[in-house]
Amino acid sequence: MPFNSFGRLFRFTTWGESHGPALGCVVDGVPPGAPVSEADLQVWLDRRKPGQSRFTTQRREADEVRILSGVFEGVTTGTPVSLMIENTDQRSKDYSEIAKTFRPGHADLAYWRKYGVRDYRGGGRSSARETAARVAAGGIARAVLAQMLPQLTIRAALVRIGKIAVDRARWDWDECARNPFWSPDAQAAGEWSEYLDGLRKSGNSVGAVIEVVASGVPEGLGAPVYAKLDQDLASAMMSINAVKGVEIGAGMAAAELTGVENADEIFMGNDGRPTFASNHAGGVLGGISSGQDVVVRFAVKPTSSILSPRASIDLAGQPAEVVTKGRHDPCVGIRAAPVGEAMMACVLLDHILLNRGQTGAQPGESLGPLG
Amino acid sequence: MPFNSFGRLFRFTTWGESHGPALGCVVDGVPPGAPVSEADLQVWLDRRKPGQSRFTTQRREADEVRILSGVFEGVTTGTPVSLMIENTDQRSKDYSEIAKTFRPGHADLAYWRKYGVRDYRGGGRSSARETAARVAAGGIARAVLAQMLPQLTIRAALVRIGKIAVDRARWDWDECARNPFWSPDAQAAGEWSEYLDGLRKSGNSVGAVIEVVASGVPEGLGAPVYAKLDQDLASAMMSINAVKGVEIGAGMAAAELTGVENADEIFMGNDGRPTFASNHAGGVLGGISSGQDVVVRFAVKPTSSILSPRASIDLAGQPAEVVTKGRHDPCVGIRAAPVGEAMMACVLLDHILLNRGQTGAQPGESLGPLG
Amino acid sequence: MPFNSFGRLFRFTTWGESHGPALGCVVDGVPPGAPVSEADLQVWLDRRKPGQSRFTTQRREADEVRILSGVFEGVTTGTPVSLMIENTDQRSKDYSEIAKTFRPGHADLAYWRKYGVRDYRGGGRSSARETAARVAAGGIARAVLAQMLPQLTIRAALVRIGKIAVDRARWDWDECARNPFWSPDAQAAGEWSEYLDGLRKSGNSVGAVIEVVASGVPEGLGAPVYAKLDQDLASAMMSINAVKGVEIGAGMAAAELTGVENADEIFMGNDGRPTFASNHAGGVLGGISSGQDVVVRFAVKPTSSILSPRASIDLAGQPAEVVTKGRHDPCVGIRAAPVGEAMMACVLLDHILLNRGQTGAQPGESLGPLG
Amino acid sequence: MPFNSFGRLFRFTTWGESHGPALGCVVDGVPPGAPVSEADLQVWLDRRKPGQSRFTTQRREADEVRILSGVFEGVTTGTPVSLMIENTDQRSKDYSEIAKTFRPGHADLAYWRKYGVRDYRGGGRSSARETAARVAAGGIARAVLAQMLPQLTIRAALVRIGKIAVDRARWDWDECARNPFWSPDAQAAGEWSEYLDGLRKSGNSVGAVIEVVASGVPEGLGAPVYAKLDQDLASAMMSINAVKGVEIGAGMAAAELTGVENADEIFMGNDGRPTFASNHAGGVLGGISSGQDVVVRFAVKPTSSILSPRASIDLAGQPAEVVTKGRHDPCVGIRAAPVGEAMMACVLLDHILLNRGQTGAQPGESLGPLG
Repeated sequence: MPFNSFGRLFRFTTWGESHGPALGCVVDGVPPGAPVSEADLQVWLDRRKPGQSRFTTQRREADEVRILSGVFEGVTTGTPVSLMIENTDQRSKDYSEIAKTFRPGHADLAYWRKYGVRDYRGGGRSSARETAARVAAGGIARAVLAQMLPQLTIRAALVRIGKIAVDRARWDWDECARNPFWSPDAQAAGEWSEYLDGLRKSGNSVGAVIEVVASGVPEGLGAPVYAKLDQDLASAMMSINAVKGVEIGAGMAAAELTGVENADEIFMGNDGRPTFASNHAGGVLGGISSGQDVVVRFAVKPTSSILSPRASIDLAGQPAEVVTKGRHDPCVGIRAAPVGEAMMACVLLDHILLNRGQTGAQPGESLGPLG
Repeated sequence: MPFNSFGRLFRFTTWGESHGPALGCVVDGVPPGAPVSEADLQVWLDRRKPGQSRFTTQRREADEVRILSGVFEGVTTGTPVSLMIENTDQRSKDYSEIAKTFRPGHADLAYWRKYGVRDYRGGGRSSARETAARVAAGGIARAVLAQMLPQLTIRAALVRIGKIAVDRARWDWDECARNPFWSPDAQAAGEWSEYLDGLRKSGNSVGAVIEVVASGVPEGLGAPVYAKLDQDLASAMMSINAVKGVEIGAGMAAAELTGVENADEIFMGNDGRPTFASNHAGGVLGGISSGQDVVVRFAVKPTSSILSPRASIDLAGQPAEVVTKGRHDPCVGIRAAPVGEAMMACVLLDHILLNRGQTGAQPGESLGPLG
Repeated sequence: MPFNSFGRLFRFTTWGESHGPALGCVVDGVPPGAPVSEADLQVWLDRRKPGQSRFTTQRREADEVRILSGVFEGVTTGTPVSLMIENTDQRSKDYSEIAKTFRPGHADLAYWRKYGVRDYRGGGRSSARETAARVAAGGIARAVLAQMLPQLTIRAALVRIGKIAVDRARWDWDECARNPFWSPDAQAAGEWSEYLDGLRKSGNSVGAVIEVVASGVPEGLGAPVYAKLDQDLASAMMSINAVKGVEIGAGMAAAELTGVENADEIFMGNDGRPTFASNHAGGVLGGISSGQDVVVRFAVKPTSSILSPRASIDLAGQPAEVVTKGRHDPCVGIRAAPVGEAMMACVLLDHILLNRGQTGAQPGESLGPLG
Repeated sequence: MPFNSFGRLFRFTTWGESHGPALGCVVDGVPPGAPVSEADLQVWLDRRKPGQSRFTTQRREADEVRILSGVFEGVTTGTPVSLMIENTDQRSKDYSEIAKTFRPGHADLAYWRKYGVRDYRGGGRSSARETAARVAAGGIARAVLAQMLPQLTIRAALVRIGKIAVDRARWDWDECARNPFWSPDAQAAGEWSEYLDGLRKSGNSVGAVIEVVASGVPEGLGAPVYAKLDQDLASAMMSINAVKGVEIGAGMAAAELTGVENADEIFMGNDGRPTFASNHAGGVLGGISSGQDVVVRFAVKPTSSILSPRASIDLAGQPAEVVTKGRHDPCVGIRAAPVGEAMMACVLLDHILLNRGQTGAQPGESLGPLG
């Protein structure tokens, strides 16, 4: 319940500060019998780790993950999987300034006012380094899902940086791996590159929108009324650092549609499952997955750690002009893509286990026949 | 945990189907000593109840709430408060059609596929009638909050119906009570009225955006990393029927801002608390309330129960054209405003109790002094 | 989480005070498709209800249960089942004395000190009338279990009243239904009858031990380390009013055994499942069911509501001699037998769902083959 | 929720296997501002660690605990505290026998049947080594409690080994530190020493009873009906390896008492708080602490790992005679004393936070005045 855990039957608890000795998570409720290795997890961590292009923070972290429990002879045992990532590049530097003033838009002030004590080094617990632990947990979820539902895919793409959005007509999932932005649109990636170079030089930052799509999701995931699949996805994505909005399917734009436009007409598929003419619903009906692609988008605000001076206050309550030096992401949204994927994986697996528990349906099985 | 409960220390569990004998909720974790009566709760229920204008469903429900436990001599005792609302206008009618076909965009199909059994009458458990129970729970939360933080206000307004948005320059909270749309802008209300009359006649429906604003929120609410205040608000709002998007502060538009634009500059207020030059954050920093207004918006899709025929399938898996007769809301978003307020009240109270538990700070107290 | 809910995937929340208008529970996580009716539930409630012999309180309550949701056309739908029992025999009487003084050994004082407000009529929330709601929830669990595991039986017996214990050599389950004490030993029942008549006349009360035995329990229930089956049973039984001790298998006496004596030797059964030479373990190994009978005992203290005067204090903190008039059970343990059965049913079903969720094993299925 | 977490607002999650690289826990919900160091925690771990006398296992483990997060400049920050203990004495040996057969009375068989995979080395997750993580979590709880309620003490004593019980007339808490058994009775310690030497030589083991007493517990802890203080203590103690019975106050013997005998008469203390003539209740009334000593006892069965051969089966389902070689405790109960203390500390702190959250009462404050 309190505060650093996510999920119900598949549940992870993260710990660690940006500049502490290590960070990690304990993943509980992992089904037994799934093959997983440190190398399997490292694949996902490497996608999130910093310093991979000039568009992300230059902090150098290997982000090497160790499995400390719950895996025996290469296979999960059903006991908790403890994962640890040591921090290696916590520069010894002078923190006196960051310790005494508050960055506008940053969690600094709120932590201080709430707790009366804070590890200010690199943002402490509020640092986005915490998301490395999520990605590790997501790797465990993926290992289980790979065995359980081999056809399931979970992919994320950046669809907007600042005012520049991708063109959906040019969408190509394979392109995401070919540019440093997870962009499915090579042309947008080029524009972003140029735009971000300018921003970085001017000591500024910018926001982004990430879209996460899960295909091959079985029907029946999500438990009304307060464990709806889309509700849990909203919770998952909003828990990621700097996220300010979450959309399912048509999202905020659903408000502008009429019922006739918005209705996803239903047909029978050749596989005996329902199929749909459109996907305004984003794969979720009444909180329950319909078998369509589950589509979630979330907006990441621009990082508040910028080189441009902003008005603020210090610990003494006196006015202070704040400039954040150091290694920061001009667009933190870029590194949020693998985090969004990880959260999707965790939510889906949790609901697969919940559904199996409550209804007895194996993943992909339906209790309500058609015809 | 499973499935029909919301909240942690202040937690309600709802039950009931649209056409069953009654619906209600059990509210647990209610602090002792708060004055509350059925009449107090009825005020909130009356704001949500159907049939109050031609723009909402014509179902006639008194929505009279009874307190069955947890209140003694007009005061909460700390034991669970059980609230019940009897259904009185479940028309006896022929449900054979609705029982056999699936409305596009409706939970019908998903419930059937998941459970293999469903109470199809009026949507059963997936009906928005469930939100009456939320509003009742919200009334309990408000009674406690009124005693604890008299200066706190929680208000909701519709800011968009279809393509027509309110003009924020004309925003007047008092106007919300003067039109049937919770519109803070009288002119928009007029345009909506005309637009909805046309829609209704053509058997169509439309979406809406609701904005909920809490003022006087104490600092320090929200517990990183997985019980963030904004995360719980996202979960709360996304759990409301037909919601497809949730925003905090700048919301999805945060993606289009630069760090310089987005930073809410900080000053010291005359009351010794931090004050801010703007509120892109929506009152939440790092998941923790900052003392600014907490601002949440959510988009409600158009209802899928429309008179215009849409393609679908039936229980036999055969094609079927579906037209939903009966009493339905052309814009269900209208009645979501009091529901959004209720969810805000519940989330805030829950976090006040959590914060009091974890840090020992009384509501409004801060552990981190400034100066 | 807070405070009036029990269970994880199968979870019930109870509400109601002794002298309020009603009491009840909401049962969440009920698997869909189980046949259940009010008459099915009434069978269990009738076994617990007061006034059935001169050895229990003479309060007259019909304890008629109503199903308000979650069952459609005689079958559970997977949505929450709301159950309500109206209180009908709350005698209007003068409560001024009980409102002002505290019964030694009763929850009166603790509630007052904790909450500063209490419904003192009949003990309010601390009354054992709350257990009617548990028995109703247990009835739902039994309905699901009957369909899922027809061979499973859950039975309780009184094995001790005061100094008089049953003789296990005379144990006959059928005898339990033939005497008013749930005694499996007719001779002990006779002795208890005489003993309790004397106690009642002298205005005294006495304790009891109840044993609950579940046969046909599948292997694999219980999730180490903090959701062990025996741990959850201990929690379940200790939550019943007036319980002061809980034992699994050999129980406290295990401390007096050697490892050689205590080891339950293992053999292969004809059904391909392990079988055991003895059952000191009470059917639980390492927190997980072994397939043996699950055996739990719990001790119920004598009721503190007695006619013999005892020293206490009043609201003013002044000395007061307390005598509890009114209708009370000379041995509340008698009516605890069906409550213990109900809690056993709920715990087992919860763990069946949890195990199905985590491991995918259907009830009775094992992932670890022998041979 | 699932499975390896304990507590609500103060909640720890343990991980690790007996022969894995490490074990540990994440402690969440730790109030900010409590001083704590690795050395503070080590004190408690040293009391539990093996190999301290000839009466416990000869496995040599330093049990050195590291704090990986949640403490900054010697003070808790309110973020999760991650604690790790490396395993150093996992002897490389031949596990082929233990991998293929099942010890009677051990979790081996149940894990295999449930999960179909298990880390058999040293019992894997079912090993009592897991309790080192509990003791570490308990150390964090104690650090917070020491600051919050300096007068609170939590102490455990062994009161029985086999047939030999302590004499309560000779009870001396200081004696517990002077013998290797936590015996408050020097004479019993002498008898146990002799008895255990004999048992060890004969390859046998024996059970024990531990009593945990908390003094200075504030009134008002425990939340009816399903988070009762005694219920949570029962759950806590029954979750410890090999525990088969839990008693509060008079415990199982309460069944043999009359109401007149069992009533703890109430007086006003000089400090304006209620005081009691006796403590059959064990400090808990109606699930809520009364301010008396909280008294819990639990029985630990004899370890199933013995040198005497017992009948069992192997993985092939064939009969096998099992003898457990290696380093084992002849009376595992001895090392359970500090574990019981740790669980008591965690439960009390959890309820202090819960009570503070729900009622707003600071530790030791009461909402219900007397006089």
